[in-house]
Amino acid sequence: MPQLSVRGIEPQSMALVSGRLVEELAAICQCDTNNFTIDCLQITSVWSGELVPTYPFIEVAWFDRGTQVRDQLARAVTRHVQSLGIPELEIAFRVYRENEYYINGLPCV
Amino acid sequence: MPQLSVRGIEPQSMALVSGRLVEELAAICQCDTNNFTIDCLQITSVWSGELVPTYPFIEVAWFDRGTQVRDQLARAVTRHVQSLGIPELEIAFRVYRENEYYINGLPCV
Amino acid sequence: MPQLSVRGIEPQSMALVSGRLVEELAAICQCDTNNFTIDCLQITSVWSGELVPTYPFIEVAWFDRGTQVRDQLARAVTRHVQSLGIPELEIAFRVYRENEYYINGLPCV
Repeated sequence: MPQLSVRGIEPQSMALVSGRLVEELAAICQCDTNNFTIDCLQITSVWSGELVPTYPFIEVAWFDRGTQVRDQLARAVTRHVQSLGIPELEIAFRVYRENEYYINGLPCV
Repeated sequence: MPQLSVRGIEPQSMALVSGRLVEELAAICQCDTNNFTIDCLQITSVWSGELVPTYPFIEVAWFDRGTQVRDQLARAVTRHVQSLGIPELEIAFRVYRENEYYINGLPCV
Repeated sequence: MPQLSVRGIEPQSMALVSGRLVEELAAICQCDTNNFTIDCLQITSVWSGELVPTYPFIEVAWFDRGTQVRDQLARAVTRHVQSLGIPELEIAFRVYRENEYYINGLPCV
């Protein structure tokens, strides 16, 4: 955590920016880079009768750190993805509560 | 958004109904069809020691539009999926908040 | 429901423990084993410029049954996964509300 779930961007592309991206995100969150994961979901999208490319979308699941940090994260993720030549990206944040999150069977509280 | 994440239904099958489905959903939500995405997740399900077919399930992620619209969406999605010969379907709605949703780095507020 | 979405654990491995796991979870929840689904998501993770193994993570989506049941579920899932020789696992619970969950087009209320 934070956990990035990526849709519509090739893993090889995400890998290209992953190092610098995670360093920047860790600096914004003031936490260790090891807290981050970047998972590219394998998806087949459909539209109007056909298989189509998946729209670029990233869900960030995290413990809420407030509006300012969230805004900074969203801008950083967007900038790195756009540096790949991907013009449009949508990002949604999903908040996990610490008492509903378990590491090796123990809640994070 | 709304974003449909589909489990347990083949992309080729979802594609068959995708055109009419999105038109109906857009009419219910009174928004443009371009707001919708249909993403079929690649999943392997397991049960009782074996790999098994994935149970048909669709998560609809959206900005909440209230009970009446939600009920109508659920009925429309169910009807189109059942027209494919799939008898059972479960649908869950997930609400994104607009201040936690970013388009090209800017929050939707 | 509950629905387990698994990352970073091979379906063949999850299958090995799936029978006993679901029996134990059903006993904890005092519900039928048929309510459970175990979906292994196909994911490619990236880190520091490379494709890497996905970190073991399970999201449990459910109707909330309270802290005690949640703690017991988390411990049971963790114990079965660790019995596969997987040392670390994180689990997050996601709560669906019954009025936002539909079975065959009808809300669960």
